[in-house]
Amino acid sequence: MKYVYELKFKVRDYECDLEGIVNNANYQHYMEHTRHEFLLTTGLSFAEMNAQGIVPVVARITISYKLPLRSRDEFVCRLAVRKEGVRYVFYQDILRLPDMKLVARGKVDTVCLVDGRLQECTALEAMLEPYFDKEEE
Amino acid sequence: MKYVYELKFKVRDYECDLEGIVNNANYQHYMEHTRHEFLLTTGLSFAEMNAQGIVPVVARITISYKLPLRSRDEFVCRLAVRKEGVRYVFYQDILRLPDMKLVARGKVDTVCLVDGRLQECTALEAMLEPYFDKEEE
Amino acid sequence: MKYVYELKFKVRDYECDLEGIVNNANYQHYMEHTRHEFLLTTGLSFAEMNAQGIVPVVARITISYKLPLRSRDEFVCRLAVRKEGVRYVFYQDILRLPDMKLVARGKVDTVCLVDGRLQECTALEAMLEPYFDKEEE
Amino acid sequence: MKYVYELKFKVRDYECDLEGIVNNANYQHYMEHTRHEFLLTTGLSFAEMNAQGIVPVVARITISYKLPLRSRDEFVCRLAVRKEGVRYVFYQDILRLPDMKLVARGKVDTVCLVDGRLQECTALEAMLEPYFDKEEE
Repeated sequence: MKYVYELKFKVRDYECDLEGIVNNANYQHYMEHTRHEFLLTTGLSFAEMNAQGIVPVVARITISYKLPLRSRDEFVCRLAVRKEGVRYVFYQDILRLPDMKLVARGKVDTVCLVDGRLQECTALEAMLEPYFDKEEE
Repeated sequence: MKYVYELKFKVRDYECDLEGIVNNANYQHYMEHTRHEFLLTTGLSFAEMNAQGIVPVVARITISYKLPLRSRDEFVCRLAVRKEGVRYVFYQDILRLPDMKLVARGKVDTVCLVDGRLQECTALEAMLEPYFDKEEE
Repeated sequence: MKYVYELKFKVRDYECDLEGIVNNANYQHYMEHTRHEFLLTTGLSFAEMNAQGIVPVVARITISYKLPLRSRDEFVCRLAVRKEGVRYVFYQDILRLPDMKLVARGKVDTVCLVDGRLQECTALEAMLEPYFDKEEE
Repeated sequence: MKYVYELKFKVRDYECDLEGIVNNANYQHYMEHTRHEFLLTTGLSFAEMNAQGIVPVVARITISYKLPLRSRDEFVCRLAVRKEGVRYVFYQDILRLPDMKLVARGKVDTVCLVDGRLQECTALEAMLEPYFDKEEE
């Protein structure tokens, strides 16, 4: 897979729960933050999109948990993106530093709503096109 | 103190941190939710206030932590409100159930910004007036 | 599907993000809290399981987002559970009140680690057995 | 005031609430993470302290909110520490980048519990001593 963006993080203690490991929902936070930071690098403006009535939304998320992160762990979140039908699908891997073991693997299906209806979004697509992973699976 | 509102909660496991107790910041969440629920009962509409350019903001918060909450604990958050100068000050106690031991005590100073400037807000005050604790301290 | 548990919630404003809707990760929190509350009703004790070296973990989660929740919305989170191989799979629907529209649908695959290794967990299974949805899909 | 530590952050969108600004409770998270990172640099080990039955806890927190942080804002959290009686008091300022405007000012009173009782903690104090701000106020 062609990873086009990666962001480094360090676990914050308040993200850990009573089992001493990062709470499952926080991986979704890490992935969301990574997506938003990536989208900013493409020049995409949520404000402009919203002004045009275009709302990108997450339609489905799947996360496979492989290894828990703990207090003080550092990690990267990597991102690849594919166009699959009307969906823009982000593949996001979280890898622990420095051993690069796979912590979690996410698949985030996003779609564009234009005036509340599912629609192809040419502006978004033009921005993302250079980053698409076009390999056959 | 004249408590005018109280809301019941139960600790959710994801609110606990790696020490097995509710993370300190979550008490602030409990207090915020209690204030907002109280304000709704007064008929106050944030949407309407915002439409008039009135923005109530928290200027200062003080929380004294007395006893930690743990997984499965139930508790109430009580609220009293006073007018102190241009500030509307919420006094919020969190009490563990069923023993009613004091868990945390909060003092939340809020002010109104009208078009970005600190100002008396007559609409808000008219709503809150019946609930004020007017005792001398 | 045979729902065996349901928990009622109300959106808290701090759970909403800058788009005015509940942040995606919070649905995972709602589902986790519902699972934990359900497990408590079965008499299952995490403390006891942990003392025996048994750790139930989430191996994978899939959430389909259908409709966003907003400030003040009330909703229920329903739960069904199936045994699928060595996995205990929770099917969790979030339905908005009072119109019962489907907000989000979750599938949460959990497994038991005994001393760090994937294993059937007879104690857990005995507890969950009466609740299993045994219908063919 | 003698600042002895500073940590840089960037707002994550999920930390913003429906008003488009960082939710008040998250400043407490930023301050907690900064304290913990600072304490790690001093060589202090929470694990060792806990093994000796020493538990540092937050007894009181006061945060003054001056200016809201918004999506994409970068900021630093600075820290000074003083000994005041049996309390170790952290003074924590959050400053927006690059204009260094004061966003929030925190005062965090911490105490040591040894076997559940308030006590001077010589091990902690020896670690913190080089960092104390000893100026008269």
